Amino acid sequence: MSISIILVRPQMGENIGAAARACANFGVRDLRLVAPRDGWPNPKAVDMAGRAIDLLDETTVFETTAEAVADCQFVLATTSRARAINMPALAAREAATELRNRVAAGQKVAVLFGPERTGLENEDVLQADGVLWIPVAPEYPSLNLAQAAVVVLSEWFAAGEVPPAADALGEPAPRAELQGMFDQLETELDAVNFWKVPEKKELMWRNIRAGLLRAQLTSQEVATWRGMIRALRGGD
Amino acid sequence: MSISIILVRPQMGENIGAAARACANFGVRDLRLVAPRDGWPNPKAVDMAGRAIDLLDETTVFETTAEAVADCQFVLATTSRARAINMPALAAREAATELRNRVAAGQKVAVLFGPERTGLENEDVLQADGVLWIPVAPEYPSLNLAQAAVVVLSEWFAAGEVPPAADALGEPAPRAELQGMFDQLETELDAVNFWKVPEKKELMWRNIRAGLLRAQLTSQEVATWRGMIRALRGGD
Repeated sequence: MSISIILVRPQMGENIGAAARACANFGVRDLRLVAPRDGWPNPKAVDMAGRAIDLLDETTVFETTAEAVADCQFVLATTSRARAINMPALAAREAATELRNRVAAGQKVAVLFGPERTGLENEDVLQADGVLWIPVAPEYPSLNLAQAAVVVLSEWFAAGEVPPAADALGEPAPRAELQGMFDQLETELDAVNFWKVPEKKELMWRNIRAGLLRAQLTSQEVATWRGMIRALRGGD
Repeated sequence: MSISIILVRPQMGENIGAAARACANFGVRDLRLVAPRDGWPNPKAVDMAGRAIDLLDETTVFETTAEAVADCQFVLATTSRARAINMPALAAREAATELRNRVAAGQKVAVLFGPERTGLENEDVLQADGVLWIPVAPEYPSLNLAQAAVVVLSEWFAAGEVPPAADALGEPAPRAELQGMFDQLETELDAVNFWKVPEKKELMWRNIRAGLLRAQLTSQEVATWRGMIRALRGGD
């Protein structure tokens, strides 16, 4: 099994094609797109993909990042900037080892890449379990989307088969189940006017979700947590 | 000190620009060209180089590979194919370590890249001390020139001094604070008869605490969570 590469709101068809080619070069078959700017399919992507066009034929398109990661159990968000989000950050090489370990354990894992000009929004990063950063020269840190994909994918390939970590932790729940729990918790916190100052909600809610994501809850734990939230609110 | 990147008979200006950009991304300042097909300077290279155009201004052009490596003490030739030439072959990662060691010892070192369509000729490879090969998927081994440069350069950079991870994670809260949160949560869950079957409490409660411990909450997050528990129970 392999990883999924997810391009979030990519702008240039050429970069989608180059990323598809890099996927093929490094043995990755699952390329996903979230809301590509110029629609899909895109002839410029085909031009750049070379012989990797078969991979473009199988590319799936989603409207939102949440939908694109719904079946994933571990997600990393590629970013060049340090972030105010409370989540683990892995350099590309460490990330490759982590991804290999999880794939070896049978998990579905994905790496997100942001749009060319702006990178990932905080909302996208919050769909991830951690941040992947690419070590670059501080004088000239801006990597092109396709080049960032090449670095991540070549590290993934070079990390090769790594024996699974002997870890008693259960499998993390699919993202869609976590989202269900988040929706429930948000609804209840809204109902009790938890935020008090509405402007504070965004940051507070982001931190709460980031904390819960770090816990890597299993499906059974998510069910327990949902029951707990319901019970605290007086349901049965 | 750093390495020299030498593009031998490059065909596309775009690839020269992309290679210059990758040099800048990974801290390499010395780009050399051997007999570029479309002459030099090349406006298409400038278009692709982004802010790395200062590096293009300093690019030196040679007529032959032998002249381009004349001042170098150790040279590797990038190639995707196995060769009938009897010389050491290093995978990109090993090569990066070898190059770092030699640069640290004060040597002038260079990496050769061949033309897009054909790769390096045997005559070029014979100017090198060894071959550098990039591990790729056997089903789709053909790397674009600029992407090959990204792999070699990112390996070079990663082999050097890597800055500490830009990890935004705060310090985990002291255990006593977590215990306070656990006590509060347990009291509230008891109050709403969450456990229903008393024999189940021990295991469920252990799992809930384990999930929260895994989140490595900071002191501030613990405070937020305590407020959240209180609010869900109808407190203010």
